[in-house]
Amino acid sequence: MRLLLLLVLVLAAAAAVANAGAESVLRSVTDAPDADALFCDSWMLSVETGNAGPWRQVPARCGASVRAYMEGDRYASDSAVAAAESLAFASQAFASGEGGAKPAWVFDVDETLLSNAPYYAQSGWGLVEFNETSFDAWVDVAKAPALPSSLKLYNELQGLGFHIILLTGRSESQRNATEENLLFAGYHSWEKLILRQPSDIGKTAVQYKSERRAVMEVEGFKILGNSGDQWSDLIGLPVSTRSFKLPNPMYYIS
Amino acid sequence: MRLLLLLVLVLAAAAAVANAGAESVLRSVTDAPDADALFCDSWMLSVETGNAGPWRQVPARCGASVRAYMEGDRYASDSAVAAAESLAFASQAFASGEGGAKPAWVFDVDETLLSNAPYYAQSGWGLVEFNETSFDAWVDVAKAPALPSSLKLYNELQGLGFHIILLTGRSESQRNATEENLLFAGYHSWEKLILRQPSDIGKTAVQYKSERRAVMEVEGFKILGNSGDQWSDLIGLPVSTRSFKLPNPMYYIS
Repeated sequence: MRLLLLLVLVLAAAAAVANAGAESVLRSVTDAPDADALFCDSWMLSVETGNAGPWRQVPARCGASVRAYMEGDRYASDSAVAAAESLAFASQAFASGEGGAKPAWVFDVDETLLSNAPYYAQSGWGLVEFNETSFDAWVDVAKAPALPSSLKLYNELQGLGFHIILLTGRSESQRNATEENLLFAGYHSWEKLILRQPSDIGKTAVQYKSERRAVMEVEGFKILGNSGDQWSDLIGLPVSTRSFKLPNPMYYIS
Repeated sequence: MRLLLLLVLVLAAAAAVANAGAESVLRSVTDAPDADALFCDSWMLSVETGNAGPWRQVPARCGASVRAYMEGDRYASDSAVAAAESLAFASQAFASGEGGAKPAWVFDVDETLLSNAPYYAQSGWGLVEFNETSFDAWVDVAKAPALPSSLKLYNELQGLGFHIILLTGRSESQRNATEENLLFAGYHSWEKLILRQPSDIGKTAVQYKSERRAVMEVEGFKILGNSGDQWSDLIGLPVSTRSFKLPNPMYYIS
């Protein structure tokens, strides 16, 4: 009986030690944090993973975090690492002949090839709801700079021999301004630039972009890669072989 | 002629200002950064977005970053924000009756309900390749703690009335240890716990888990939410209405 009691005590102690050892590794946090900087870093991650779902504007408490992110090293670094991973995949896929006769790479335009950071710097970094009128005026100026790492990737993919297809939510009426801006930013020689037609009005980006990727496949393109700052650039069938989500904590498009 | 020259100069100056103003907002970074901490933060983001693609172990230069992330506030905060977003969606979807008669939520087990951080703390935080033998021994001990925010979410979803289905890559031979560990960690009353059967050996997680979600749909479950730390928990048809990617910079499963 005493032996049994001893055994029980030893086992209980062992379990307690194992348990304490296990729990001491992790923070016992169950709720979203109160501290703005910590919460906002996690919120921005949730935007990047798609966990956040639809949202209309940056949470008020996160305005400073979004601005610091966009202006600082992280946005540039995150974009550059995404581009490096894109190129690593592209080189390997191209070398293996995975793309067949017409290997293609699809790029979104805004916050992917071109950066509207100068516009958002003037309009609250996403803290206010999207204003179509003022944004369209900015598009017409056609002076958005390239996202530097995207321009480098673009040129590298062209060097490999990819067919580059630009698929943007901008409307056909913005074709001239968009072409002018792309050239201003250093992009050239795209296979095609696809913009929303009047018949696409009212479609979600997922629907519109998926339909256009389906047409590309019918045309014989093998879409190996797709780069976009919105999940709506990347999801929906058909999908590319690999998708690359570029960071964007400023706005959401469904 | 002088008027024309003046006009040209004014336009050139205006363009220069617009251009300088635009570029000054962004860092001119095109390559992945040299600094380990900055690179590793971006690499961890690329893992979370799926940009990184398949990888076998944490890059050697990122061991310290992964450890600091897992032990610090960010892992707990990122997990808690994912859980809060899950609950916000679940509450709204449940209230709207979107789930029909059998609204369901699918949870992965490892790094989703249970944390193996104590194991990885002892085995290099993902710096070394996965060792199935030592990991299986850890599973048999059945003392992995709950991920605190997941346990809270789990209880909240049960309170709402969700059918909770656990879908894990662990094998059927680990059923007893897994059930024991779930109970130890505070989970109870799951609808079913699905483990890999002998016939699933050799399947990717995407294939195996997609097949099981298809069965759930045939059984009449409406899979509103799916929580997992791997994209292979979440992608593949059929998908849930909303997917929630929990952080995991320690290992990758295809």
